[in-house]
Amino acid sequence: MKQRIFSILVDNNAGVLTRISGLFSRRGYNIDSITAGTTMDPRFTRITITTSGDDLILEQIGQQLAKQVDVRDIKVLKPEKSVNRELILVKIKADPSQRQDVLAVANVFRANIVDVGKQSMIIELTGQQSKLAAFLELLEGYEILELARTGLTGLSRGMDDVRYFD
Amino acid sequence: MKQRIFSILVDNNAGVLTRISGLFSRRGYNIDSITAGTTMDPRFTRITITTSGDDLILEQIGQQLAKQVDVRDIKVLKPEKSVNRELILVKIKADPSQRQDVLAVANVFRANIVDVGKQSMIIELTGQQSKLAAFLELLEGYEILELARTGLTGLSRGMDDVRYFD
Repeated sequence: MKQRIFSILVDNNAGVLTRISGLFSRRGYNIDSITAGTTMDPRFTRITITTSGDDLILEQIGQQLAKQVDVRDIKVLKPEKSVNRELILVKIKADPSQRQDVLAVANVFRANIVDVGKQSMIIELTGQQSKLAAFLELLEGYEILELARTGLTGLSRGMDDVRYFD
Repeated sequence: MKQRIFSILVDNNAGVLTRISGLFSRRGYNIDSITAGTTMDPRFTRITITTSGDDLILEQIGQQLAKQVDVRDIKVLKPEKSVNRELILVKIKADPSQRQDVLAVANVFRANIVDVGKQSMIIELTGQQSKLAAFLELLEGYEILELARTGLTGLSRGMDDVRYFD
Protein backbone atom coordinates (compact mmCIF):
# COMPACT_ATOMS: atom_id res chain seq x y z
CA MET A 1 0.00 0.00 0.00
CA LYS A 2 1.41 3.32 -1.06
CA GLN A 3 -0.02 6.72 -0.35
CA ARG A 4 -0.58 9.24 -3.13
CA ILE A 5 -1.74 12.84 -2.98
CA PHE A 6 -3.80 14.11 -5.92
CA SER A 7 -4.28 17.85 -6.37
CA ILE A 8 -7.31 18.25 -8.63
CA LEU A 9 -8.54 21.47 -10.16
CA VAL A 10 -12.27 21.25 -10.87
CA ASP A 11 -15.03 23.50 -12.16
CA ASN A 12 -16.84 25.03 -9.22
CA ASN A 13 -20.12 23.28 -10.09
CA ALA A 14 -22.81 22.27 -7.61
CA GLY A 15 -22.25 18.72 -6.42
CA VAL A 16 -18.73 18.40 -7.79
CA LEU A 17 -17.39 17.28 -4.41
CA THR A 18 -20.05 14.59 -4.18
CA ARG A 19 -19.23 13.33 -7.68
CA ILE A 20 -15.50 13.13 -6.94
CA SER A 21 -15.91 11.45 -3.54
CA GLY A 22 -18.64 9.24 -5.03
CA LEU A 23 -16.19 7.95 -7.63
CA PHE A 24 -13.94 6.79 -4.79
CA SER A 25 -16.65 5.13 -2.72
CA ARG A 26 -18.34 3.47 -5.72
CA ARG A 27 -15.11 1.83 -6.80
CA GLY A 28 -13.92 1.07 -3.30
CA TYR A 29 -10.89 3.38 -3.42
CA ASN A 30 -9.66 4.66 -0.07
CA ILE A 31 -9.96 8.33 0.83
CA ASP A 32 -7.46 8.99 3.63
CA SER A 33 -8.33 12.68 3.56
CA ILE A 34 -10.00 15.24 1.32
CA THR A 35 -9.83 19.01 1.43
CA ALA A 36 -11.41 21.51 -0.92
CA GLY A 37 -11.45 25.26 -1.41
CA THR A 38 -12.05 27.78 -4.16
CA THR A 39 -8.97 29.16 -5.90
CA MET A 40 -8.31 32.86 -6.56
CA ASP A 41 -10.45 32.40 -9.66
CA PRO A 42 -13.89 31.59 -8.17
CA ARG A 43 -14.77 29.45 -11.20
CA PHE A 44 -12.43 26.75 -9.94
CA THR A 45 -12.11 24.67 -6.79
CA ARG A 46 -8.96 22.81 -5.79
CA ILE A 47 -9.58 19.41 -4.23
CA THR A 48 -6.71 17.60 -2.54
CA ILE A 49 -7.27 13.88 -1.98
CA THR A 50 -4.90 11.60 -0.11
CA THR A 51 -5.49 8.01 -1.10
CA SER A 52 -3.72 4.68 -0.75
CA GLY A 53 -3.47 1.45 -2.69
CA ASP A 54 -1.08 -0.59 -4.82
CA ASP A 55 0.49 0.84 -8.00
CA LEU A 56 -2.29 -0.46 -10.23
CA ILE A 57 -5.06 1.04 -8.11
CA LEU A 58 -3.31 4.41 -7.86
CA GLU A 59 -2.86 4.43 -11.63
CA GLN A 60 -6.57 3.63 -12.10
CA ILE A 61 -7.61 6.42 -9.74
CA GLY A 62 -5.65 8.96 -11.78
CA GLN A 63 -7.26 7.72 -15.00
CA GLN A 64 -10.76 7.73 -13.53
CA LEU A 65 -10.32 11.24 -12.17
CA ALA A 66 -9.14 12.46 -15.57
CA LYS A 67 -12.40 11.20 -17.13
CA GLN A 68 -14.63 13.32 -14.88
CA VAL A 69 -16.26 16.22 -16.72
CA ASP A 70 -15.64 18.69 -13.90
CA VAL A 71 -11.90 17.95 -13.75
CA ARG A 72 -9.60 20.53 -15.38
CA ASP A 73 -6.21 19.44 -14.16
CA ILE A 74 -4.70 16.70 -12.03
CA LYS A 75 -1.32 16.72 -10.36
CA VAL A 76 0.32 14.12 -8.18
CA LEU A 77 2.00 15.92 -5.28
CA LYS A 78 5.26 14.05 -4.73
CA PRO A 79 6.59 14.53 -1.20
CA GLU A 80 10.05 15.59 -2.36
CA LYS A 81 8.71 18.12 -4.84
CA SER A 82 5.82 19.63 -2.95
CA VAL A 83 4.76 21.31 0.27
CA ASN A 84 2.03 19.32 2.01
CA ARG A 85 0.42 20.57 5.19
CA GLU A 86 -2.42 19.79 7.53
CA LEU A 87 -3.94 21.76 10.39
CA ILE A 88 -5.09 20.12 13.61
CA LEU A 89 -6.86 21.43 16.69
CA VAL A 90 -6.46 19.39 19.87
CA LYS A 91 -8.47 20.01 23.01
CA ILE A 92 -6.78 18.51 26.05
CA LYS A 93 -7.82 18.36 29.66
CA ALA A 94 -5.51 20.59 31.67
CA ASP A 95 -6.08 22.29 34.99
CA PRO A 96 -4.17 25.50 35.83
CA SER A 97 -1.26 23.55 37.38
CA GLN A 98 -0.65 21.74 34.08
CA ARG A 99 -0.69 24.77 31.79
CA GLN A 100 3.04 25.46 31.93
CA ASP A 101 3.85 21.89 30.94
CA VAL A 102 1.46 22.01 28.01
CA LEU A 103 2.94 25.33 26.93
CA ALA A 104 6.43 23.79 26.96
CA VAL A 105 5.34 20.92 24.70
CA ALA A 106 3.55 23.37 22.40
CA ASN A 107 6.66 25.56 22.14
CA VAL A 108 8.85 22.66 21.02
CA PHE A 109 6.52 22.13 18.05
CA ARG A 110 5.85 25.84 17.47
CA ALA A 111 2.21 25.11 18.15
CA ASN A 112 -0.20 27.84 19.23
CA ILE A 113 -2.44 27.81 22.26
CA VAL A 114 -5.71 29.18 20.87
CA ASP A 115 -8.01 28.66 23.86
CA VAL A 116 -7.55 28.32 27.60
CA GLY A 117 -10.49 27.25 29.76
CA LYS A 118 -10.73 26.38 33.43
CA GLN A 119 -10.01 22.72 32.76
CA SER A 120 -9.03 22.59 29.12
CA MET A 121 -6.77 24.06 26.46
CA ILE A 122 -6.97 24.02 22.66
CA ILE A 123 -3.72 23.74 20.73
CA GLU A 124 -3.37 24.52 17.02
CA LEU A 125 -0.60 22.92 14.99
CA THR A 126 0.19 22.78 11.29
CA GLY A 127 2.71 20.59 9.54
CA GLN A 128 3.39 17.44 7.65
CA GLN A 129 1.70 14.30 8.86
CA SER A 130 4.84 12.91 10.53
CA LYS A 131 5.19 16.07 12.65
CA LEU A 132 1.54 15.98 13.69
CA ALA A 133 1.81 12.31 14.61
CA ALA A 134 4.89 12.99 16.75
CA PHE A 135 3.07 15.83 18.50
CA LEU A 136 0.01 13.72 19.29
CA GLU A 137 2.30 11.00 20.63
CA LEU A 138 3.94 13.51 22.96
CA LEU A 139 0.52 14.49 24.29
CA GLU A 140 -0.21 10.92 25.33
CA GLY A 141 0.18 11.76 29.00
CA TYR A 142 -2.78 14.12 28.74
CA GLU A 143 -6.41 13.35 28.20
CA ILE A 144 -7.31 14.37 24.65
CA LEU A 145 -10.93 15.49 24.76
CA GLU A 146 -11.42 16.38 21.11
CA LEU A 147 -9.40 16.38 17.92
CA ALA A 148 -10.28 18.14 14.67
CA ARG A 149 -8.09 17.88 11.58
CA THR A 150 -8.43 19.37 8.13
CA GLY A 151 -6.72 16.70 6.08
CA LEU A 152 -3.74 17.43 3.84
CA THR A 153 -3.54 20.22 1.33
CA GLY A 154 -0.50 20.98 -0.79
CA LEU A 155 1.22 22.73 -3.65
CA SER A 156 4.10 21.63 -5.85
CA ARG A 157 7.36 23.54 -5.26
CA GLY A 158 8.68 26.05 -7.78
CA MET A 159 7.00 27.02 -11.02
CA ASP A 160 7.53 24.00 -13.26
CA ASP A 161 3.98 22.84 -13.50
CA VAL A 162 1.92 25.94 -12.79
CA ARG A 163 -1.20 26.01 -14.94
CA TYR A 164 -2.13 29.53 -15.88
CA PHE A 165 -5.87 29.06 -15.81
CA ASP A 166 -5.63 28.59 -12.05
CA MET B 1 -28.07 34.08 3.88
CA LYS B 2 -26.34 33.10 7.08
CA GLN B 3 -23.34 30.87 7.45
CA ARG B 4 -23.34 27.95 9.85
CA ILE B 5 -20.56 25.54 10.80
CA PHE B 6 -21.58 21.99 11.65
CA SER B 7 -19.12 19.72 13.45
CA ILE B 8 -20.31 16.18 12.84
CA LEU B 9 -18.94 13.05 14.46
CA VAL B 10 -19.57 10.02 12.23
CA ASP B 11 -18.75 6.33 12.22
CA ASN B 12 -15.64 5.78 10.16
CA ASN B 13 -17.48 3.68 7.55
CA ALA B 14 -16.55 3.39 3.88
CA GLY B 15 -18.36 6.01 1.82
CA VAL B 16 -19.56 8.08 4.79
CA LEU B 17 -18.12 11.27 3.28
CA THR B 18 -19.95 10.61 0.02
CA ARG B 19 -23.23 10.02 1.85
CA ILE B 20 -22.90 13.25 3.84
CA SER B 21 -21.85 15.39 0.87
CA GLY B 22 -24.47 13.61 -1.25
CA LEU B 23 -27.18 14.70 1.17
CA PHE B 24 -26.17 18.31 0.56
CA SER B 25 -25.99 18.07 -3.24
CA ARG B 26 -29.22 16.07 -3.56
CA ARG B 27 -31.18 18.66 -1.62
CA GLY B 28 -29.39 21.63 -3.12
CA TYR B 29 -27.80 22.78 0.14
CA ASN B 30 -24.60 24.79 -0.21
CA ILE B 31 -21.27 23.39 0.94
CA ASP B 32 -18.92 26.33 1.42
CA SER B 33 -16.23 24.01 2.71
CA ILE B 34 -15.83 20.52 4.09
CA THR B 35 -12.97 19.00 6.04
CA ALA B 36 -12.68 15.52 7.52
CA GLY B 37 -10.25 13.59 9.62
CA THR B 38 -10.22 10.63 11.99
CA THR B 39 -10.39 11.42 15.70
CA MET B 40 -8.09 9.93 18.35
CA ASP B 41 -10.50 7.00 18.38
CA PRO B 42 -10.09 5.57 14.86
CA ARG B 43 -13.70 4.34 14.87
CA PHE B 44 -14.87 7.92 14.38
CA THR B 45 -14.30 10.65 11.84
CA ARG B 46 -15.03 14.32 12.48
CA ILE B 47 -16.49 16.16 9.49
CA THR B 48 -16.70 19.96 9.59
CA ILE B 49 -19.08 21.48 7.06
CA THR B 50 -19.52 25.19 6.48
CA THR B 51 -22.84 25.87 4.83
CA SER B 52 -25.09 28.86 4.15
CA GLY B 53 -28.79 29.53 3.76
CA ASP B 54 -31.73 31.13 5.53
CA ASP B 55 -32.83 30.06 9.01
CA LEU B 56 -35.27 27.47 7.70
CA ILE B 57 -32.72 25.79 5.45
CA LEU B 58 -30.06 25.73 8.18
CA GLU B 59 -32.59 24.15 10.55
CA GLN B 60 -33.47 21.54 7.90
CA ILE B 61 -29.81 20.70 7.32
CA GLY B 62 -29.33 19.99 11.02
CA GLN B 63 -32.40 17.74 11.07
CA GLN B 64 -31.36 15.87 7.92
CA LEU B 65 -27.85 15.30 9.24
CA ALA B 66 -29.26 13.94 12.50
CA LYS B 67 -31.22 11.31 10.53
CA GLN B 68 -28.12 9.82 8.87
CA VAL B 69 -27.21 6.38 10.23
CA ASP B 70 -23.47 7.17 10.33
CA VAL B 71 -23.93 10.34 12.40
CA ARG B 72 -23.14 10.06 16.13
CA ASP B 73 -23.16 13.68 17.19
CA ILE B 74 -23.78 17.10 15.67
CA LYS B 75 -22.65 20.44 17.07
CA VAL B 76 -23.11 23.91 15.65
CA LEU B 77 -19.84 25.78 16.11
CA LYS B 78 -20.89 29.31 17.07
CA PRO B 79 -18.16 31.84 16.25
CA GLU B 80 -18.18 33.36 19.76
CA LYS B 81 -17.97 29.98 21.48
CA SER B 82 -15.55 28.12 19.25
CA VAL B 83 -12.14 28.21 17.63
CA ASN B 84 -12.42 27.96 13.85
CA ARG B 85 -9.35 27.78 11.67
CA GLU B 86 -8.32 27.20 8.08
CA LEU B 87 -4.93 26.62 6.49
CA ILE B 88 -3.97 28.13 3.14
CA LEU B 89 -0.92 27.77 0.93
CA VAL B 90 -0.31 30.58 -1.56
CA LYS B 91 2.28 30.38 -4.31
CA ILE B 92 3.19 33.84 -5.58
CA LYS B 93 5.50 34.94 -8.34
CA ALA B 94 8.49 36.66 -6.76
CA ASP B 95 12.00 37.14 -8.09
CA PRO B 96 14.92 37.54 -5.65
CA SER B 97 14.49 41.35 -5.51
CA GLN B 98 10.93 40.96 -4.22
CA ARG B 99 11.65 38.42 -1.50
CA GLN B 100 12.22 40.94 1.28
CA ASP B 101 8.90 42.65 0.58
CA VAL B 102 7.04 39.35 0.63
CA LEU B 103 8.77 38.42 3.88
CA ALA B 104 7.62 41.70 5.43
CA VAL B 105 3.99 41.06 4.49
CA ALA B 106 4.27 37.49 5.78
CA ASN B 107 5.70 38.67 9.10
CA VAL B 108 2.79 41.02 9.73
CA PHE B 109 0.42 38.06 9.52
CA ARG B 110 2.78 35.61 11.25
CA ALA B 111 2.71 33.59 8.07
CA ASN B 112 5.47 31.11 7.23
CA ILE B 113 7.51 30.99 4.05
CA VAL B 114 7.60 27.26 3.30
CA ASP B 115 9.26 27.28 -0.13
CA VAL B 116 11.51 29.66 -2.04
CA GLY B 117 12.18 29.04 -5.72
CA LYS B 118 14.01 31.09 -8.34
CA GLN B 119 10.85 32.92 -9.30
CA SER B 120 8.30 31.88 -6.74
CA MET B 121 7.58 31.57 -3.03
CA ILE B 122 5.00 29.53 -1.12
CA ILE B 123 3.47 31.09 1.99
CA GLU B 124 1.56 29.14 4.64
CA LEU B 125 -1.00 30.89 6.80
CA THR B 126 -3.59 29.70 9.28
CA GLY B 127 -6.41 31.67 10.82
CA GLN B 128 -10.02 32.62 10.75
CA GLN B 129 -11.53 33.38 7.36
CA SER B 130 -11.45 37.15 7.87
CA LYS B 131 -7.70 37.07 8.53
CA LEU B 132 -7.05 34.92 5.47
CA ALA B 133 -9.15 37.23 3.30
CA ALA B 134 -7.23 40.28 4.56
CA PHE B 135 -3.93 38.55 3.81
CA LEU B 136 -4.93 37.62 0.26
CA GLU B 137 -6.06 41.20 -0.29
CA LEU B 138 -2.66 42.48 0.79
CA LEU B 139 -1.01 40.17 -1.75
CA GLU B 140 -2.96 41.74 -4.59
CA GLY B 141 0.14 43.49 -5.89
CA TYR B 142 1.72 40.11 -6.56
CA GLU B 143 0.81 37.50 -9.10
CA ILE B 144 -0.80 34.60 -7.26
CA LEU B 145 0.13 31.46 -9.17
CA GLU B 146 -1.66 28.88 -7.08
CA LEU B 147 -3.82 28.77 -3.99
CA ALA B 148 -4.68 25.71 -1.92
CA ARG B 149 -6.97 25.88 1.10
CA THR B 150 -8.19 23.23 3.50
CA GLY B 151 -11.55 24.70 4.44
CA LEU B 152 -12.54 25.44 8.04
CA THR B 153 -12.17 23.07 10.92
CA GLY B 154 -13.06 23.93 14.50
CA LEU B 155 -13.69 22.97 18.09
CA SER B 156 -16.00 24.50 20.68
CA ARG B 157 -14.22 26.35 23.49
CA GLY B 158 -14.07 24.94 27.01
CA MET B 159 -15.53 21.65 28.16
CA ASP B 160 -19.28 22.27 28.24
CA ASP B 161 -20.25 20.03 25.38
CA VAL B 162 -17.47 17.49 25.16
CA ARG B 163 -18.85 14.04 24.30
CA TYR B 164 -16.88 11.32 25.95
CA PHE B 165 -17.15 8.81 23.15
CA ASP B 166 -14.97 11.09 21.02
